[in-house]
Amino acid sequence: MPNITLKKIAEILGISVATASKALKDYADISDETKQKVKSLAEELDYKPNSFAQSLRNRESKIIGLIAPQIVHHFFANIIKGVIDAAEEQGYLVITLQSGESYETEKKQLQLLLDKNVDGILISLSDKTINYDHVADIIKKGVPVVLYDKISKLLDCSKVIIDDRKAAYDATKFLIDTGCKRVAHIRGPLKPQTTIDRFLGYKSALKDNNIEYNESLVFETKDLTYDDGYGIAEGIFKSDEDIDGIFAFTDLLATGAMVRLTELGMKVPDDISIIGFSNWFLTKITSPPLSTVDQPGYEMGVKAFKLLYREIQEKKKDVNSPKEIIKIPTKVIPRNSTRPML
Amino acid sequence: MPNITLKKIAEILGISVATASKALKDYADISDETKQKVKSLAEELDYKPNSFAQSLRNRESKIIGLIAPQIVHHFFANIIKGVIDAAEEQGYLVITLQSGESYETEKKQLQLLLDKNVDGILISLSDKTINYDHVADIIKKGVPVVLYDKISKLLDCSKVIIDDRKAAYDATKFLIDTGCKRVAHIRGPLKPQTTIDRFLGYKSALKDNNIEYNESLVFETKDLTYDDGYGIAEGIFKSDEDIDGIFAFTDLLATGAMVRLTELGMKVPDDISIIGFSNWFLTKITSPPLSTVDQPGYEMGVKAFKLLYREIQEKKKDVNSPKEIIKIPTKVIPRNSTRPML
Repeated sequence: MPNITLKKIAEILGISVATASKALKDYADISDETKQKVKSLAEELDYKPNSFAQSLRNRESKIIGLIAPQIVHHFFANIIKGVIDAAEEQGYLVITLQSGESYETEKKQLQLLLDKNVDGILISLSDKTINYDHVADIIKKGVPVVLYDKISKLLDCSKVIIDDRKAAYDATKFLIDTGCKRVAHIRGPLKPQTTIDRFLGYKSALKDNNIEYNESLVFETKDLTYDDGYGIAEGIFKSDEDIDGIFAFTDLLATGAMVRLTELGMKVPDDISIIGFSNWFLTKITSPPLSTVDQPGYEMGVKAFKLLYREIQEKKKDVNSPKEIIKIPTKVIPRNSTRPML
Repeated sequence: MPNITLKKIAEILGISVATASKALKDYADISDETKQKVKSLAEELDYKPNSFAQSLRNRESKIIGLIAPQIVHHFFANIIKGVIDAAEEQGYLVITLQSGESYETEKKQLQLLLDKNVDGILISLSDKTINYDHVADIIKKGVPVVLYDKISKLLDCSKVIIDDRKAAYDATKFLIDTGCKRVAHIRGPLKPQTTIDRFLGYKSALKDNNIEYNESLVFETKDLTYDDGYGIAEGIFKSDEDIDGIFAFTDLLATGAMVRLTELGMKVPDDISIIGFSNWFLTKITSPPLSTVDQPGYEMGVKAFKLLYREIQEKKKDVNSPKEIIKIPTKVIPRNSTRPML
């Protein structure tokens, strides 16, 4: 069934389209009788103003784009939920895309979103992204962009992050405070800022507690999956028998390592303590339940949308306030994969 | 920075907008020289045809709407991923919304999507939805709609589901085949079709194996969460000491029940076997790893988009082929929360 147009309504009533339009908008120069007639007919025929035509007039789509590296991922799913909830509250809808940690895909998707004239874009960079021109270009064009979680310090836009360095510092210090003397770190790929910051946090916690940093206790994984953690654990076990604590970059890495170390006869936490990062649901039901760092995804999503929303509104008024960086607080969640505090 | 318009390009070159437009589209009645000039200027100025204006002309938004009951949910996240991947392949973008299992929200969101002139809608009904007029209305308006996973038999549109009855039958039969004599069922709320079908599958597996159906072995939960499973387990344990198997409606229910029963001193699977439903990632790492039924969410998402895409194309050609119901195959995944086959 074709959509009812304002033209059709005007035709039926024998009035001009302009009059019909004014009537719907309650213009003072239209008689109450005409307003009444137009409105009831519009209601009867289920007339909806064409949103594209409206968008064209308002130069607004009321749609934003959201690029996440992954969707089947507890943390990012929580962020997406937060963004969609906050957006809906302001009458915005969200086109969600997943880069799959691919730079090429991410680049293509930014263009897809621009082609749809989205009002703004939220993006968390893929782990493979090491050139940022594709994002810098759209910031230069004046499209509101907010980076969340995986960011680059080289991009001049607002950002919502956690304080990865502090969070990692807290996790490492927690292991030390519960009696660990030789703490290993399972880190992610070299480049992303989150990996660098968590590594630096680990390092300074050692330093502040008079433990010498030892390069051979840092283990790098390609991906951040359960299988990677499982795969790397035997190497850790064999490389240094005195390791009594592991701070892993993600809960999945920590869980994989814990399962494998248990298979190899190690007792968690008596022989070795393990702490993960993110507080995924699964950490509550591992055996033993995994100590971790809570990283509030939902809140990050809400904050990211709010920042973007403000920039969209400011753009309409030609206001240009300084970029903002919001840091969401994290906290250590002690469970049974680490020992009690000394 | 304002967007470059075709009018601006025409002005600069001193030609008409129509000529500039034809030049960009390689019309035969435009000289190669003019085409060349228009194209290089368009490239130089980074001219992008306005997508709203294009949409208005084509009556297409190349955007579809996707409503899921939840996003932070392994199964639905996989479906969303499948939809987005399949859509992107055809040049479509996806506005994702979550009803949060609320009928009112679902109704409001359908309207939001219609207001944006999406080309079609994929929806999985909320558990609270017991009136279907809001969906029936948009089907009547000719908007392509495909239901996935949680459907209603009362709605006349294409659907992608799993054969819940068969899947539940297989899970129950598997418990019987591994030696269970008294199989309980933890089911979800009474109304959704998935709950009804899995319950019926459970019942017929009992019947086909000469086990009498016993109402007191069916336990209903309000939600389908880990906490619900954990909470209901003690009641099951106390109600009937001979229960030696549980088929739970979801992996979360099964996991919650397993953790609680273990706390109460039961040995899984020796005292009691437990099988879940969906094959969430966490089932691999529970203790013991949970037997379950694999329900391929990603595939469901891909198939749902493909059905919708076909209907969108057919609508453009005024073709109206019969509605289709696709059933995605499932299979039992035996792990260690059930005993080996006899």
